[in-house]
This record gives sequence, structure tokens and C-alpha cells, in this order.
Amino acid sequence: MPRPECPPIAADVIAEIGDKIVLIERKNFPHGYAIPGGFVDFGETVEATAVREAREEISLDVEIREMLGVYSRPDRDPRGQTITVVYIARASGVPKGADDAKSAALYDPRNPPSPLAFDHAEILRDYVRFLDTGQRPSPWRKP
Amino acid sequence: MPRPECPPIAADVIAEIGDKIVLIERKNFPHGYAIPGGFVDFGETVEATAVREAREEISLDVEIREMLGVYSRPDRDPRGQTITVVYIARASGVPKGADDAKSAALYDPRNPPSPLAFDHAEILRDYVRFLDTGQRPSPWRKP
Repeated sequence: MPRPECPPIAADVIAEIGDKIVLIERKNFPHGYAIPGGFVDFGETVEATAVREAREEISLDVEIREMLGVYSRPDRDPRGQTITVVYIARASGVPKGADDAKSAALYDPRNPPSPLAFDHAEILRDYVRFLDTGQRPSPWRKP
Repeated sequence: MPRPECPPIAADVIAEIGDKIVLIERKNFPHGYAIPGGFVDFGETVEATAVREAREEISLDVEIREMLGVYSRPDRDPRGQTITVVYIARASGVPKGADDAKSAALYDPRNPPSPLAFDHAEILRDYVRFLDTGQRPSPWRKP
């Protein structure tokens, strides 16, 4: 049976170490700082993608603790529409950039570096609000 | 830039009318009862897919109120891996099956009809637990 063609789907992971989070500096377009993540492979769950990408891009084993939200505005990725599921995870150790990441380091999510790629500034604002209030982003966004 | 090939992504919508929900009887394989839903088109958000599919399959306008979870186990769809984002929405009016739905009717989510297609029995159990406790399904499932 032919499968439908849909926008590609990715997982991003906000990896927490203490009260800091790991961000990468991207090696490829679009440049800037970003939450680590990548595309879902056939045969893996979305949450397994998040764990795999943390291993590949920031060289850390992470334990997923929450799903923050799904972000799918058609213009959020300048390479073409990409849907992403954003997870929050605990990590330990020292992040080391690899693969798509030129570097990886710890940042204060309330004072992130600039520029942030994609819609990651919005995602980090949603993350901080979730930390402060327990409230997830609204499931409905204006199309 | 060539886009990656990923498992197709869908949105499903648990449409609530009072304390009942709308389920469809599927016209196509896999047969059985199901939560209405369908694949995400390029250019639309995942939540807009949920609203569009409710209109197409059960002939109702819905208002999304929550996102329940993301389900992506590779074997959850016998047609091939499909990732789905499940929303909870309020609806009113009288459901009428169309498109992929042979029929649509109201059911008690605590006593759903059988057989349910895909992993929709698991999703409805998660939904009832969310109603009762406010707890969403764990974001981490064994791969």
C-alpha cells in the first residue's frame, strides 16, 4: 500500500543538567543556537529519536521526563515544513558537540544565546513557563 | 534541499459531546472502530489536521482543548509505521460519518465498542485516565 507523503517529523530534546540546559551551535543551515534534535527514522519511536539525537549531537545519555509540545507551523523551518515533538529530559556529564553540532554547552534557559534557529526562542519561552507554572503550550495555534 | 523521508504523521481527535465521544466505523483497512483522524497535509499544522479531519469524517466543527500524547510505536498501524498526535476537543451537534468513516456515533469512552483499530484501545484508556487524574501518558514507552 503506498504511504502518504507528509511533512517530515523530528524530535528535539531539552536536556537539563542542574538548572541549565544544553544548546548546540549548528554546523549546517540554518545557523545559530538550537535545541539538539533530528529526524525520526523508520522503525523508531519519536521519543527514541530524542534519546538517539542527544547521544549523537551532544554526546549525552538522557532520560525523558516530559513532553512539552508539538510544533508544526509550516514556516518554522526555512528548509521546508518540519514538525517537531519537543521533550524535556534529565542528563548528566559534560556535553560535547558532534554530528550536526559545531559545539554544545550549558546555558541558562531564561537567558539563552542569540540567535536561536527555527522557532526555538518560542519553544524555550514555553519551556520556562512550563517550569514556572506546570502549564504546557496551548495545543491550538493560529494556522 | 532534499527533505528526509520519515514515517507519515497523522492527527487523531477525541471529540467530546457531553460525557460521550465520537467514534467512527472504518470503511477501509484496518477495519473496526476508531478515533477519527488522518494524515497531515503539507502547509497545515498538526492541530489544523485534527480540526479538518473532524469536519471530513464526522461532519462536526470541533474546538481543540488538550493534546493527549504522541503515539509512534512502529507496529501500531498494520499499513506501515504511522505517528499520530492525539487531541481532545469539544464538539456539538450530531455526528455523521463520511469520507473514511462508514458511520459515526457517540460512545461511552469507559465502555467502547469492539474491535478498536490500531492502538486506539490503549489511547482511550490513556484518555480516561487523563479525565480521572489529569495525568498524561508517559512520554517514554519501551521501543
